[in-house]
Amino acid sequence: MTQRKNLIEQIDGARLARQIEQLSEIGRTPQGGVTRLAFTREDMAGRELLRAWMREAGLEIQRDAIGNLIGVLRGKNPDAPVLACGSHIDTVINAGKYDGIVGVLSAVECARVLHEHGGLNAPLHVMNFVMEESARFGAGYGFGSRVMEGAEISKQELFARDRSKVLMARAIQELKGWETGSKIATERTALQAAQHDIAASRYDWSRVRAFLELHIEQGPVLARTGKQIGIVTAVAAPTRLQILVTGEQNHSGATPMSMRHDALAAGAEIILAVERIANEFTAPPVVGTVGVIQAEPNVMNSIPGRVELRVDIRSADAQAKRECAAAVQRAIQWIARKRGVAVEVTILTDEAPVEFAPDIVNLLERVCAAQNIDAVKMPSGGGHDAAHIARVAPAGMIFIPSRDGVSHDPREFSSPAEILCGAQVLLGALLALDTE
Amino acid sequence: MTQRKNLIEQIDGARLARQIEQLSEIGRTPQGGVTRLAFTREDMAGRELLRAWMREAGLEIQRDAIGNLIGVLRGKNPDAPVLACGSHIDTVINAGKYDGIVGVLSAVECARVLHEHGGLNAPLHVMNFVMEESARFGAGYGFGSRVMEGAEISKQELFARDRSKVLMARAIQELKGWETGSKIATERTALQAAQHDIAASRYDWSRVRAFLELHIEQGPVLARTGKQIGIVTAVAAPTRLQILVTGEQNHSGATPMSMRHDALAAGAEIILAVERIANEFTAPPVVGTVGVIQAEPNVMNSIPGRVELRVDIRSADAQAKRECAAAVQRAIQWIARKRGVAVEVTILTDEAPVEFAPDIVNLLERVCAAQNIDAVKMPSGGGHDAAHIARVAPAGMIFIPSRDGVSHDPREFSSPAEILCGAQVLLGALLALDTE
Repeated sequence: MTQRKNLIEQIDGARLARQIEQLSEIGRTPQGGVTRLAFTREDMAGRELLRAWMREAGLEIQRDAIGNLIGVLRGKNPDAPVLACGSHIDTVINAGKYDGIVGVLSAVECARVLHEHGGLNAPLHVMNFVMEESARFGAGYGFGSRVMEGAEISKQELFARDRSKVLMARAIQELKGWETGSKIATERTALQAAQHDIAASRYDWSRVRAFLELHIEQGPVLARTGKQIGIVTAVAAPTRLQILVTGEQNHSGATPMSMRHDALAAGAEIILAVERIANEFTAPPVVGTVGVIQAEPNVMNSIPGRVELRVDIRSADAQAKRECAAAVQRAIQWIARKRGVAVEVTILTDEAPVEFAPDIVNLLERVCAAQNIDAVKMPSGGGHDAAHIARVAPAGMIFIPSRDGVSHDPREFSSPAEILCGAQVLLGALLALDTE
Repeated sequence: MTQRKNLIEQIDGARLARQIEQLSEIGRTPQGGVTRLAFTREDMAGRELLRAWMREAGLEIQRDAIGNLIGVLRGKNPDAPVLACGSHIDTVINAGKYDGIVGVLSAVECARVLHEHGGLNAPLHVMNFVMEESARFGAGYGFGSRVMEGAEISKQELFARDRSKVLMARAIQELKGWETGSKIATERTALQAAQHDIAASRYDWSRVRAFLELHIEQGPVLARTGKQIGIVTAVAAPTRLQILVTGEQNHSGATPMSMRHDALAAGAEIILAVERIANEFTAPPVVGTVGVIQAEPNVMNSIPGRVELRVDIRSADAQAKRECAAAVQRAIQWIARKRGVAVEVTILTDEAPVEFAPDIVNLLERVCAAQNIDAVKMPSGGGHDAAHIARVAPAGMIFIPSRDGVSHDPREFSSPAEILCGAQVLLGALLALDTE
């Protein structure tokens, strides 16, 4: 154990902090944020830097056909079950420096320490998943981890286009072309090529003992409760509703209050109903958010005739989420009847929450206790690559605090000390898993 | 009186209906509406058609320097106080066929009947005000009538640009150039030229006995109560508030309900407060509408951090409107304190309601009674050219029903019989005023 403790102290927090800053310069925005959308030149530049750091850490780099990077540290026992860890380095538009990046660079730092001190018995695979963020093409999160998982990728997803009308299937081929010198497929052949590459990129999880992802919380719980580490028990999944409210568009001056069917006032009642109902679910907790609203015609002198709302309901507990969504739907119908407006509700997404392996959760608790870290078990409200991997291998996640819970924003921040603590827990867990 | 009744029966409802259809073909949209924005080629084409009809009706046409058209029917007594009537033929984007147009064409039809039957003692001025609608440049309504009224036109208004970046001051010069062959000012000189033309277009209202405007109601009151004519007592004026709500933008999945400061939920409470408070003001009535809402970042996985609302509060009663606006402001502050969000309220507009001359209102009541018309006195919630003229001359307005209260929309509709009825009341009023 003494030797292990010594190893954990070899993690170089200053190097990690330096690397995070250096990576954030690629795709830097005028607001001080980072835009490094998947499959773009910025993504490629970020990946080149990452490869250099992986090589310096002693990792042999494999690139699968769609662009997931796997840095391999050979184990003393090549037949031992593989230990895997990682995250992503692509970002949303005007993002922070930490989301995903902390998990990849900490994993590389753990590999460096292990490499410099004789390695593990088991092989270590450090993964950088391609396109975790859905910001560019708008499909579900975690494309690269879903491909490695072996999940089906719909044609619809591959046919998506970004704001510049670039086809998703072609973007995959572009990155491949730049990085491997392979011929870049035309739009006509990109779909077939992408499907081929997706099939070829399925990873063999049967050899894996555990996958671990270190990540910033992206929420306020750790920061506000003063906890150092969150041990993630489950990843909440969203049920998403689109609600179209149709009332009567009329002149705002010429229509008496009693003769109105105001679609926005109905929408306002729905927004408050979502909030009130979600508040009622405390154990297990559910969150409900109306994040998107569009009113028509949205001019000063018209009563809005049409309003679109998009509701996001999440819980790590499938039953609680189902009950909450049903209560929201009943409230919507009641509000519509009362106000004489029409509503049309479409379920956009209805995903199942994912639970992490209990033995990994327990192991992470023991590791934190051994390091005298004040940790708390918690669900994750946001989705992560680890949630996809959890369907095919034992997986777990380690959260570190996000200042003010802010993420996907230039103000995103986790301190060097918090990042170091997370990396130490990650290394501690890898060492514990290696000797099990 | 018999002779008068006969004259009123000379109004040709079929011709009026035909002219309305014909004018609606200029600027016809794919949705079946009309876009004839002020000072555009479509506006010019509509005005040419109107001029031809004015000439056929025996009117001598004057054009003032900014483009208001005045069709003059000489009176038997040139020194008698002038009788004036009219409205506008410019439209919003994808408008209906009736707003403004009914008033201008009915006035021309009245002039035709009078011309063919020996005219009035008093001179008659039929007015087509330029740019009643604010759709193109976004400033206040009734530019042409404000210029004729002699109201001050701010430099800011003249410096406004449309979506194609055309300067308002230059648009005035363009129409003038097309219609009069005058040199079209460059942008540099357009402001000065416009200011000169505005000063030159002030009309001498001291000679005017009364100004009358026939208009569609643009609201549902007449249609829903089965009344044929509305006699407008006053024009409500808006108080408009911009409300910026700043909460905390956070991840919608990762932020527990108890740790939120949701700007959109706060906005929803404000929307419902505006509705509830306006509902409390019934005599005299006030209407309150949130017509505009913008949330940021307006994405599915973020709690909105910032919401902008625009509130329109109107009444024909200045005191009631003031009390309602104050109550709304108190509610906003209370909601903000309760939810821990910041609000910033800006008063965008705070106009005074305009009352029409009581003797004109009484005269219109007598005219309707004499014609066995079921009329009702009512305020106008929307603004009209007549509201500007009322500040400098005795003025009144006649409303006809709008089907479903719909206006500024291709579905806007008033029947030929309703339009005929309105034109007959207008002619009856001109005849009554002529013999007073």
